[in-house]
Amino acid sequence: MILTINCGSSSLKYQLYTPDLGEVAAKGIISRIGEAGTSIDHRVGGRKIRQDLPGADHAGALEAVIANLLHPEWGAIGDIAEIEAIGHRAVHGGDTFVESVLVTDEVIAQLEECTPLAPLHNPVNLVGIREARRLLPDVPHVVVFDTSFHQGMPPHAHVFALPYHYYAEHKIRRYGFHGTSCRYVSARAAEILGRPIEDLRMVICHLGNGVTIDAVSGGRSVDTSIGFGTFSGVMMGTRSGDFDPGLIFYMHKKLNMSLSDIEAICYKESGLLGVSGVSNDMREVVEQAVAGNARCALAIDMFVYMVRKFVGSYAAAMDGIDALVFTAGIGENSAYIRSRISHGLEFLGVELDDVANDQVNGAAAIISPAHARAATMVVPTDEEKMIALDTLRLSGGLIGRDPAEVYLAAAVAE
Amino acid sequence: MILTINCGSSSLKYQLYTPDLGEVAAKGIISRIGEAGTSIDHRVGGRKIRQDLPGADHAGALEAVIANLLHPEWGAIGDIAEIEAIGHRAVHGGDTFVESVLVTDEVIAQLEECTPLAPLHNPVNLVGIREARRLLPDVPHVVVFDTSFHQGMPPHAHVFALPYHYYAEHKIRRYGFHGTSCRYVSARAAEILGRPIEDLRMVICHLGNGVTIDAVSGGRSVDTSIGFGTFSGVMMGTRSGDFDPGLIFYMHKKLNMSLSDIEAICYKESGLLGVSGVSNDMREVVEQAVAGNARCALAIDMFVYMVRKFVGSYAAAMDGIDALVFTAGIGENSAYIRSRISHGLEFLGVELDDVANDQVNGAAAIISPAHARAATMVVPTDEEKMIALDTLRLSGGLIGRDPAEVYLAAAVAE
Repeated sequence: MILTINCGSSSLKYQLYTPDLGEVAAKGIISRIGEAGTSIDHRVGGRKIRQDLPGADHAGALEAVIANLLHPEWGAIGDIAEIEAIGHRAVHGGDTFVESVLVTDEVIAQLEECTPLAPLHNPVNLVGIREARRLLPDVPHVVVFDTSFHQGMPPHAHVFALPYHYYAEHKIRRYGFHGTSCRYVSARAAEILGRPIEDLRMVICHLGNGVTIDAVSGGRSVDTSIGFGTFSGVMMGTRSGDFDPGLIFYMHKKLNMSLSDIEAICYKESGLLGVSGVSNDMREVVEQAVAGNARCALAIDMFVYMVRKFVGSYAAAMDGIDALVFTAGIGENSAYIRSRISHGLEFLGVELDDVANDQVNGAAAIISPAHARAATMVVPTDEEKMIALDTLRLSGGLIGRDPAEVYLAAAVAE
Repeated sequence: MILTINCGSSSLKYQLYTPDLGEVAAKGIISRIGEAGTSIDHRVGGRKIRQDLPGADHAGALEAVIANLLHPEWGAIGDIAEIEAIGHRAVHGGDTFVESVLVTDEVIAQLEECTPLAPLHNPVNLVGIREARRLLPDVPHVVVFDTSFHQGMPPHAHVFALPYHYYAEHKIRRYGFHGTSCRYVSARAAEILGRPIEDLRMVICHLGNGVTIDAVSGGRSVDTSIGFGTFSGVMMGTRSGDFDPGLIFYMHKKLNMSLSDIEAICYKESGLLGVSGVSNDMREVVEQAVAGNARCALAIDMFVYMVRKFVGSYAAAMDGIDALVFTAGIGENSAYIRSRISHGLEFLGVELDDVANDQVNGAAAIISPAHARAATMVVPTDEEKMIALDTLRLSGGLIGRDPAEVYLAAAVAE
């Protein structure tokens, strides 16, 4: 079996896949790590188990995962040796990691060097990897980066027009995030269309709590909306998205705000919440807009408009698009937002089958009429599955299985 | 006659138009005001006069303008009363001025209130207006704003996704610049196409030392690339254009840079100069790129790519375009940059007639084949002419002439 581990700053998510990746044998989440009320929610078959884990840190959380997976009553394996390989999510691989890799001591050292680029996330990712290697030292570990899919972007898309040495010496560049999601979704979209990904120009709209718009040409990310930090690109729940950087100088000099206050505002008080004044949750913002709240309506107009502009700009990057793909929480579940984004993109060949769009809810589907020049689609994302696939691919030889065969089984199982 | 005045921080430009605006009777520039070596270059007929103006401030510069216009040998008028109206350029009209206005004491007070938004430019604009009113108190004065054309942008295009009170109370929003140029060029483009501007969706690429990309739908600016300050949007000679604002926090915290240093870099050491390491002048950057300089080639790639992305995003804002219009120094004179931007926008219906493109040099022309779905054009900008037209329109009744008749004469004279 293959175990995936995703360590956040105060959480740890895990999924245990059957050897053909066709099924999730068990999964769960440990919440509030390092806070009061730490607990684990473990799922196996139809059962849900909840346990308190008072005082658990990430190491303790991982021990609880293994204990639950081995539990005689609600476990999924009889022996720890059934875990053949482990896949880890890491947020930032800098410009070092252009794809997923087998974990070695050298990889860990390189990942440490990327920490200044993601000071909140990489350290906990590293804790997860180290603890998992301590508990399961004899299985291959693989690390999958949120940034690596985007590292092949051409320089004209990833260099900022600041003095060149900030790029060459300080590694200041566009990195992008949500790469694991965009890679999975673009591959699935090609499968669903029944066309080779090499022939397709897609814009992936990963619209969730975080938002990434990604230009994918021939299966490669050629541009992406998030830049260096994680509040840029399209506005998000509480994050501002792009704005004129000159505002920061003005807010500091004329409004007497400290840089740390401005930064906190960009991350925590902006986006849907900041504009609407109501909520960071798109569902609530839409509800209030329908009820007549003008600032909620404006927040939606702005969100939709920013996404549409990215779609248009990425069409310019690829001289048109073959598919417009929606994924993640808002993208999978809001027919209204999908409709608002898609209508008025007829110049790109985008047309919406409104009935099909309204009927989709969290399932993969084509929501454009067959004659449309560009396919509009909903493709649920599955970062864990992508991590499991990479883990198998990179450790397949080590654990004595041919990844190609398993890929086939996994694809059939969808 | 109508006199236009454009006060910069260390310069003053002027043009004297014949009453039908069909000809420039005299024009000139005072350079290095407030510095050593202040001088005036005055042109009348085929003659060029150069005089030193040691110690002249803006008031002294304006007196020298009047003296030269009245000069028995190289003047253009016999009596100061022949100047019937004066048009002034102002950089920033905030959200107060949505169009050009006749100058009154109240207008001056309102313009003063906009000074924090353009601390380097508005004060000298005000000096020019005050001195001109002192010297010519009995003629109508009109002020034309670089920002006013953009003030009709819909809220979803001009509000940033920061907490709403920065917009509502502190007037932090997208203002845009180069509005006088974009307004003139879009009107001329419609004339040249022989189509009502109300029916046209255009993207104006004002590519000069400053760069603005402007979406003009039905003659109105609906979105524009420069935001709040003047270094945003597309990279320029020494200005960075847009980048992830999060970089500023990183450069401050991790690279120990002061905010004022970062700001100076964004304005003065970035853009073409910062990336190429060679020059802020596109001509020189292109020359060096052709000679094999990789960073010059990258600077051009980035510039072209940023423009292309704006064109695509504005097509998304208007569901397609009818015309792509190039203007200002680079836009009027570089067939190479026009070609690099236009090729690969076939999805927008943009096609280039390469022969026509190569032959255009500073003159108005359509450079796409007749069958192209979108017209690609070169239209030389003329901000002074636009200021003169507005001045006549707003003062026409006061000076006893019907602007409509003069507009006709001016259009025929082109």
